[in-house]
Amino acid sequence: MNYEHIFDEAIDRLHSEGRYRVFIDILRNKGAFPNARCFAGHNGPKPITVWCSNDYLSMGQHPKVVAAMEDALHDVGAGSGGTRNIGGNTHYHIQLEQELAGLHGKEAALIFTSGYVSNDATLSTLAKLLPGCVIFSDELNHASMIAGIRNSGCPKRVYRHNDLAHLEELLAAEDADTPKLIAFESVYSMDGDVAPVHAICDLAEKYNALTYIDEVHAVGMYGQHGGGISERDDAAHRIDLIEGTMGKAFGVMGGYVASSRKVIDCIRSYAPGFIFTTSLSPVLVAGVLASVRHLKESSVEREAQQANAASLKRHFREAGLPVMDSTTHIVPLMVGDPVRAKTISDILLAEYGVYVQPINFPTVPRGTERLRFTPGPTHTEGMMVELTDSLVEIWDRLDLELQKAA
Amino acid sequence: MNYEHIFDEAIDRLHSEGRYRVFIDILRNKGAFPNARCFAGHNGPKPITVWCSNDYLSMGQHPKVVAAMEDALHDVGAGSGGTRNIGGNTHYHIQLEQELAGLHGKEAALIFTSGYVSNDATLSTLAKLLPGCVIFSDELNHASMIAGIRNSGCPKRVYRHNDLAHLEELLAAEDADTPKLIAFESVYSMDGDVAPVHAICDLAEKYNALTYIDEVHAVGMYGQHGGGISERDDAAHRIDLIEGTMGKAFGVMGGYVASSRKVIDCIRSYAPGFIFTTSLSPVLVAGVLASVRHLKESSVEREAQQANAASLKRHFREAGLPVMDSTTHIVPLMVGDPVRAKTISDILLAEYGVYVQPINFPTVPRGTERLRFTPGPTHTEGMMVELTDSLVEIWDRLDLELQKAA
Repeated sequence: MNYEHIFDEAIDRLHSEGRYRVFIDILRNKGAFPNARCFAGHNGPKPITVWCSNDYLSMGQHPKVVAAMEDALHDVGAGSGGTRNIGGNTHYHIQLEQELAGLHGKEAALIFTSGYVSNDATLSTLAKLLPGCVIFSDELNHASMIAGIRNSGCPKRVYRHNDLAHLEELLAAEDADTPKLIAFESVYSMDGDVAPVHAICDLAEKYNALTYIDEVHAVGMYGQHGGGISERDDAAHRIDLIEGTMGKAFGVMGGYVASSRKVIDCIRSYAPGFIFTTSLSPVLVAGVLASVRHLKESSVEREAQQANAASLKRHFREAGLPVMDSTTHIVPLMVGDPVRAKTISDILLAEYGVYVQPINFPTVPRGTERLRFTPGPTHTEGMMVELTDSLVEIWDRLDLELQKAA
Repeated sequence: MNYEHIFDEAIDRLHSEGRYRVFIDILRNKGAFPNARCFAGHNGPKPITVWCSNDYLSMGQHPKVVAAMEDALHDVGAGSGGTRNIGGNTHYHIQLEQELAGLHGKEAALIFTSGYVSNDATLSTLAKLLPGCVIFSDELNHASMIAGIRNSGCPKRVYRHNDLAHLEELLAAEDADTPKLIAFESVYSMDGDVAPVHAICDLAEKYNALTYIDEVHAVGMYGQHGGGISERDDAAHRIDLIEGTMGKAFGVMGGYVASSRKVIDCIRSYAPGFIFTTSLSPVLVAGVLASVRHLKESSVEREAQQANAASLKRHFREAGLPVMDSTTHIVPLMVGDPVRAKTISDILLAEYGVYVQPINFPTVPRGTERLRFTPGPTHTEGMMVELTDSLVEIWDRLDLELQKAA
């Protein structure tokens, strides 16, 4: 048994497919997002513009968030010092869970160390509590949902992306007495499309299934108070569990689920991924609390983000760049090849000071490799013009085809 | 299918076994640990002393840690804004991984959002990369290691706690060509005993098995530089993967593994729990970096902790309280019944302002319920005398037996 050899082969496979990942070493500049410094391949940091952050609304630099974190740091220190059950349950945690429950119109909420963990822990535990449960999962669901479903050990039925007829066909094929759970996302982060939430709830009611929605790419950004697509579409009351993140639009870190008091009590009491882990640092929790409260009241950030996303799509389209259809704030530019996607990204960073990560398998299916831009409220019109010009120049240099405007 | 009914039953089971968990709502006082405020069942916060924190060395309030976090917060903001691959790889992350690799004398390290995730993601991925791998697991391994092993899908052989003969018997029963991995902890957190690290490594060499050690209850606290039991016993070079946490002795949050460059590259490239999650907030990473660097140089905290742990055990023993054998900083007091453990804990909190959580199943086996004290460098002799007197009074009140001193 030669272990070294096996590990070598695993890495070689990635190189040969052109999808070995190199992490770009950066520091963002608080107060000046999307400006940042890049440390890769240079002597000392070089200024760049970040175009691929999931700090969608720049809340990571919001003065209220920073002040709340600073206050908590000085009041209670760096970490929580324990699991939620053993010494690590702070007053901040309690307050944030109440705030998040309120945001979604639910009785209770539970926070986790990450959105990944909230999906994995909740889905695996929920399904384990329901003997014989069958899980219906959208084929484009995130890796963390897939992990939770697999770890539940329950049978899974994968339905074609947002395909209601297929979902109904699969639901109808199960016994009426079988416990059922439909798991889906609201905004799909790589294509930027949205689930038909009400129609899925209609099917759930018809076939007596529980519903689980992942709103990580929507909370803070959609709905009058940032409650996500389920708030925007007035569907939150029809969904059993709403999952969200504190690490994207809310600008900090961590994940959560909101549901009935009973369901939350079950997850809290039975999920190993919640029970056996040090709770979120109170410094982070304080920051999220400030962020959620701000975005409940303020729509300025949401509106600026939507305006900039529309503007960037227009610039790309007018230049003939292959921007994908997206009805949300996400602006994917199709490349279709992992090596080429990385080449374009490398040129952008080295020559234009533009940082946008190539998105390759397994994050997206092979053959759909892309660049994924996330314009936020702090990207300027000038930055968008410059970015579009840079891309056109690179498309030209690499002999890629531009689409003629209609 | 009545979902409500199923969830009700799940909660009722916990109540009927006396192990329904009530989280104690606290805020620790930075600069005055172990002093804290408790919000439960009172009008306004009440002062308490925390005796069950895993912020073992009070690094969560160390001025260097707090200053580093404040600097990072003002320099780069609240969150990382992305996964390590997409926008969330900061210069702090790179520096901390280098520092942790150095701490354990390894080529590389990888940080995760928690110790739980580092165990789950690493063990499940490592074993998946080794086709046909058999995992040998100590029966008292932590829930996160068990999760990682189960999620790997590999066959598992559980050996009796720290039982070398049993481990060898199981190793010898497998084919010589079968890939093998021995997974164990250094300090077992609930009993406070230590693994025979060198003897396990001897067996690993004899049977050509990889070794994986969980040092979460040892890093920062053992070894001249805080490298854990593997440093103290001069065994780090014999262990393939060393896993640790940043949320206990280092006082902040997060987990990591250190190993060869090749193995770390594999985990980094193949573990969904690492790839598909927002990276740790740079604020936390900066704090950990300061903490690790401080504890590499300073042994003051480690020595004070050991002295206080020895002192508390002596006080308990002299008073006839049923303190368990423990060769480490952990001081478990055996109760043996979940309801009684909770009663004692409730009286301590309500009447004496002492916070120590009852430890019940599934954290410890049924029948071994206990109170688990973690004296740190900031607990005073006066606090220990007071605590011992309070416990003797409660033991008396509840008609529990005190052991006569020999």
